Amino acid sequence: MNKKTKVNAAILIIGNEILSGRTQDTNTSTLAIWLNSIGVKVEEVRVIPDIEQTIIDTLNFFRSTYNYVFTTGGIGPTHDDITAQSVSKTFGIKYEIHKEAFKMLESYYKPGEFNEGRQKMSWMPENANLIYNPTSGAPGFSVENVFCLPGVPSILKSMLGGLTNSIVGGKPIKSHTISLRTVESEIANSLTKVQNDNKDVEIGSYPFFHAGKLGVSIVIRSEDQTKIDVCNSQILNFINAKNIEVVDR
Amino acid sequence: MNKKTKVNAAILIIGNEILSGRTQDTNTSTLAIWLNSIGVKVEEVRVIPDIEQTIIDTLNFFRSTYNYVFTTGGIGPTHDDITAQSVSKTFGIKYEIHKEAFKMLESYYKPGEFNEGRQKMSWMPENANLIYNPTSGAPGFSVENVFCLPGVPSILKSMLGGLTNSIVGGKPIKSHTISLRTVESEIANSLTKVQNDNKDVEIGSYPFFHAGKLGVSIVIRSEDQTKIDVCNSQILNFINAKNIEVVDR
Repeated sequence: MNKKTKVNAAILIIGNEILSGRTQDTNTSTLAIWLNSIGVKVEEVRVIPDIEQTIIDTLNFFRSTYNYVFTTGGIGPTHDDITAQSVSKTFGIKYEIHKEAFKMLESYYKPGEFNEGRQKMSWMPENANLIYNPTSGAPGFSVENVFCLPGVPSILKSMLGGLTNSIVGGKPIKSHTISLRTVESEIANSLTKVQNDNKDVEIGSYPFFHAGKLGVSIVIRSEDQTKIDVCNSQILNFINAKNIEVVDR
Repeated sequence: MNKKTKVNAAILIIGNEILSGRTQDTNTSTLAIWLNSIGVKVEEVRVIPDIEQTIIDTLNFFRSTYNYVFTTGGIGPTHDDITAQSVSKTFGIKYEIHKEAFKMLESYYKPGEFNEGRQKMSWMPENANLIYNPTSGAPGFSVENVFCLPGVPSILKSMLGGLTNSIVGGKPIKSHTISLRTVESEIANSLTKVQNDNKDVEIGSYPFFHAGKLGVSIVIRSEDQTKIDVCNSQILNFINAKNIEVVDR
């Protein structure tokens, strides 16, 4: 199969705890780095509350706009975990006990410990594909292009390896970073020129403050290493001409 | 003036570096905690790329849907900083040198250092209100209910104090957390009952793993302390009945 050059995704973070500021989301970064490595570009992230209609509306927009959709959060056993039932309604699929998930959970827990709360985690859209969870038993699931993962970062991370074969990415997006001892305004004009000369390469400029010193990281991103190399040498040219110290490249 | 009971906001994180996973967003949590403290509830967050039309479309939806909109990122001097021009187009306002911002920046830099790149940071929507920046000189700005802040977390944080008087919040949202040595499935049913009996209170359940031990934090949120107290005692009742250890409350 030929790989498509552009494969994209959106991430939907479901959870009041992120919106209240109580919990710092780290799953976006984890998912984005993993997706980049398999040739999928994240084009949008939304954080929304635990409200069924909001979840359904957002999923309907995402699944028709992007190649892949990843949700995090809301698949645990408590009342505020409503992702599985919302996905069922989104696709108009029955919400029921998933036999395979039920067996998986039943064998994970000690006899007598597989209570009603835990059984809730086997309720899913009918015939959903399971996503294996090596950390804590309860599987994630996918329906068509929508993949539902838990909110706990360590558990989410442990599930990505098993997911990789389910995702058909495009060409991996490569990146190259040049870190400079300068400030953005010193290089802004020259960098704009390089960007204008290389319109299909993504060039970002990010100020940093590290070990008491200011600097700027220039990040060049493209699927095509040759194009990255061209930009890199154009940037190094003006940096040398300006006598700017390169910290790392 | 009577305070409205419900005042809400949305946050728009502008930046390819967040979508690529290179940079971990922390501004959402900073803004959400600050907004909560002045009675504004964050109802949605979106992370979008540095694309003008995407910024304009999202801003138009946000500013007509929520009381306040906060953007982060894209107000620096480089080619990928396009927030100010996008806000100008969103409101159909001229994008031009803001005289007050220009003077502010001119006096911030040493003579001869106020170059073209730095001057770009004084380009804004005509008559925008400035947001004072005590850290690095370049001000943020607001137009109507849209407030534009920088992406660098330490600079953003330093600007919030000066902004507080520009925001008219509702009743501050109070919260109470009970941390338990248990797992979610043990308390799911009882907690559902408390939520059903107190529908206008937001009750969240969050598993944690700390110092080698599993636990669950229950977070009760409301503008009304009495309602929080009612939920708290109902929760403590079933916790005592179940002999669950309270770690912190």
